[in-house]
Amino acid sequence: MNTHTVKAYGDELNQLTAEVARMGGLAEAQVADAVDSVARRDIALARAVVDRDVKLDAMHRDIEKKAIRLIALRQPVASDLRKTLAAMKLSVDLERTGDLAKNIAKRALAVAETEPMQPLTRSIERMGRLVSMRLRDVLDAYTSGELDGALAVWASDDEVDEHYNALFRELLTYMMGDPRTINACTHLLFMAKNLERIGDHATNIAETVHYEITGDEMIGERPRGAPGASETGLTHTHTLPEA
Amino acid sequence: MNTHTVKAYGDELNQLTAEVARMGGLAEAQVADAVDSVARRDIALARAVVDRDVKLDAMHRDIEKKAIRLIALRQPVASDLRKTLAAMKLSVDLERTGDLAKNIAKRALAVAETEPMQPLTRSIERMGRLVSMRLRDVLDAYTSGELDGALAVWASDDEVDEHYNALFRELLTYMMGDPRTINACTHLLFMAKNLERIGDHATNIAETVHYEITGDEMIGERPRGAPGASETGLTHTHTLPEA
Repeated sequence: MNTHTVKAYGDELNQLTAEVARMGGLAEAQVADAVDSVARRDIALARAVVDRDVKLDAMHRDIEKKAIRLIALRQPVASDLRKTLAAMKLSVDLERTGDLAKNIAKRALAVAETEPMQPLTRSIERMGRLVSMRLRDVLDAYTSGELDGALAVWASDDEVDEHYNALFRELLTYMMGDPRTINACTHLLFMAKNLERIGDHATNIAETVHYEITGDEMIGERPRGAPGASETGLTHTHTLPEA
Repeated sequence: MNTHTVKAYGDELNQLTAEVARMGGLAEAQVADAVDSVARRDIALARAVVDRDVKLDAMHRDIEKKAIRLIALRQPVASDLRKTLAAMKLSVDLERTGDLAKNIAKRALAVAETEPMQPLTRSIERMGRLVSMRLRDVLDAYTSGELDGALAVWASDDEVDEHYNALFRELLTYMMGDPRTINACTHLLFMAKNLERIGDHATNIAETVHYEITGDEMIGERPRGAPGASETGLTHTHTLPEA
């Protein structure tokens, strides 16, 4: 290998990492905008989120293609291989995050047509901000290579679950109190679920960052056995009277 | 490389593929059992599904570890590299499928405590059988390397969506008619959503099989833009009167 080849290889790897970071920035913006579009009943913003999602899909395909080519042609080892595999994994999580943000925005369009339900949309907003923060923190950890940041996100997974559980209870009470809200509340229910899943993707990303830096798998079970456990919501429904 | 090394390499690759196939078989069984546990209100079966999920998690970790080691030490190229990458991808989809089956089983436990809702659980059962069939067909395509089988599963993605939409309408009508069923119906709603997502994973698997065999990405957009579009369910809620 001559110097030129070596340089190009390093460039390719850096470019891959930079593209993942950019994709992360876009995914972060999509989640924040989707949540804002719910809170402000902003139809134009919701439409913009829906339209922008194709960019994330394209970036995902591009990163995957580049990573596979890099593995095939450059045959990276050790930390370079981990970087490449991490880029592939992260782009999957970010693409899914984008899908979930798009889904929230689509539901925002539907909810904007119904009667405002202030307390509920404020709860969605609070949960959305929490999830956005987790996503921002874990992407910071990725770009700075700081293990502590990734571990902090990983360890605080149950905060999101607590928000989800409280919101779920709130929604059920609302629906039971006024069946005319069932249709709209179902959208909010899925929004909350989507936010919870975005939180799970942030946890996945934390695990991948940990793997990229240390070469080890994440130690032990997730805080609350996410995503399985947190998705059932069995705990909260049982605290409600069997109406 | 001597003959011994070459043989061991081929063995490793075959072993990886076989392990993915086994994982597929287990995931398939988990989905079928989870759906049966709902239909038959079978608490013991639901518990068995929940308990068995750790096996899929372990298989996923093992396949990923073996694939990474194979890439790092053997530096496979061309179809061998595709096989290895496909194994990694499939194990992610199968692990997620297992999580969703576990989630359905957990909800089956909760629903078994409520009043039977025959027509609804029968609809879940029908949708479950359809999704199980798709999973079986795409895994058949994987093990036999038959492109047509994978393409057929990929092209029939919207059948699952249609089932989901009909079931969603049915559930909303039920909840509005009798708010005491809201709690239980919410579980069924998420079960239906989980089945739809398992269908999306079957579509993902079809795309990966296509990639493994041909080396090309899947042609064009998914039939109905899954998973984004199918997750919103906006079409059906609008056919309902804004109650």
